[in-house]
Amino acid sequence: MLRFPDCHEQDETLSQPAHRLKVRAALRDGPSTRRRILMAALKAFARHGFDGVSLRTIAVEAGVNHQLIAHHFGSKQDLWDAALEARQEDFQEFHQALSITGDSSDPRDQFRSCVKTIIKFTLASPDIPCIHYHEALINRSARKNSDRYQRLLEDRIARYRTQIQRLLTQAMEAGIIAQVPIDDFFFVFQGAVLHRIIVAKESEHFAGVPIEEVVDAHTDAIVGSFAR
Amino acid sequence: MLRFPDCHEQDETLSQPAHRLKVRAALRDGPSTRRRILMAALKAFARHGFDGVSLRTIAVEAGVNHQLIAHHFGSKQDLWDAALEARQEDFQEFHQALSITGDSSDPRDQFRSCVKTIIKFTLASPDIPCIHYHEALINRSARKNSDRYQRLLEDRIARYRTQIQRLLTQAMEAGIIAQVPIDDFFFVFQGAVLHRIIVAKESEHFAGVPIEEVVDAHTDAIVGSFAR
Repeated sequence: MLRFPDCHEQDETLSQPAHRLKVRAALRDGPSTRRRILMAALKAFARHGFDGVSLRTIAVEAGVNHQLIAHHFGSKQDLWDAALEARQEDFQEFHQALSITGDSSDPRDQFRSCVKTIIKFTLASPDIPCIHYHEALINRSARKNSDRYQRLLEDRIARYRTQIQRLLTQAMEAGIIAQVPIDDFFFVFQGAVLHRIIVAKESEHFAGVPIEEVVDAHTDAIVGSFAR
Repeated sequence: MLRFPDCHEQDETLSQPAHRLKVRAALRDGPSTRRRILMAALKAFARHGFDGVSLRTIAVEAGVNHQLIAHHFGSKQDLWDAALEARQEDFQEFHQALSITGDSSDPRDQFRSCVKTIIKFTLASPDIPCIHYHEALINRSARKNSDRYQRLLEDRIARYRTQIQRLLTQAMEAGIIAQVPIDDFFFVFQGAVLHRIIVAKESEHFAGVPIEEVVDAHTDAIVGSFAR
């Protein structure tokens, strides 16, 4: 079972002796305020995208004065970076969980475990994939990717892609799924897994049950349609 | 080959004798202005979502005075409805194209044709799927779907779903793809087809070619991984 810990970063502002007032505020509010802001930011960015969110909205969601966000994080872009970074710990746990599924003896069980792990992780932490889709939509018809999206692609998505492709290649070599060029199959697999979780309300509308209750049906559908 | 005609609706304002000024403006600007506004609206909604777009932005994109939009369409919600309706003609052609692929003698060719038709249509008219993803993201964590999303689900998506599921069921019955509960498989298939087109810039970043050039590779990857 995956566990997705909350983030408890150190407040770097504590080490800046020049900002007496900031230090006092940070001592008073502590890491839990930082965490509350980061979680509110992730949720808001996931729902409305970077441009659709103001620091003021995030402040209301987090139950803090919006100047406190500027104090803790600086600009909206800085907050975005910090919010994505705050998920890094979860991702490491996710990558570790995926590696462990690679140890199963039966390759079919192994493939199933991988699919289920990805589904469960995405359901528990849907914000990064949602943010990813927002950036994809905004940049889709742009002449040039925004710096933000470019960094998302080069840092986070490239790393994720490498690990998933390794697991899919193993499944192909074991004859569990069809031999398809991996760079093309990545998108097929990724869409097959993510789509239902992203369009959760469409799934709930047509299936009549909360998205959390379709983990097994969704896993079975993916394994059943890809595995030989 | 699919052809996606521009929309040429009648301007209903012409039949409202009470609005002399409006009639004169409509006569002067004609359906081409309406069309330009609708196309600009679709593009803007697809990129930024309903909330991320102002009538003023659409007016700039369409190269018209923003009061002309209010004159032609009324509110932003009315413009949204008109823009989605303007795609209706394309959708009918798409549904017809899909039906024709159902006539092929070889079920595997038939399945391949369906997949390619959906990919080509989505590439030619990505705005409705993009708008759909925006609505999915906004409503994902909402307690209750917005009226706009609810109508999208009940009207357009339900109809699309019915036709795609019929084709997928035929492919299952012909033994081309695995027997998987169709309500679950719909999301797997839909994600497999749409994802790469939505995250077009990610595809371009990693594949190094424009999204339009991966139609065959993407079709092959889907058919190769699902078909038996």
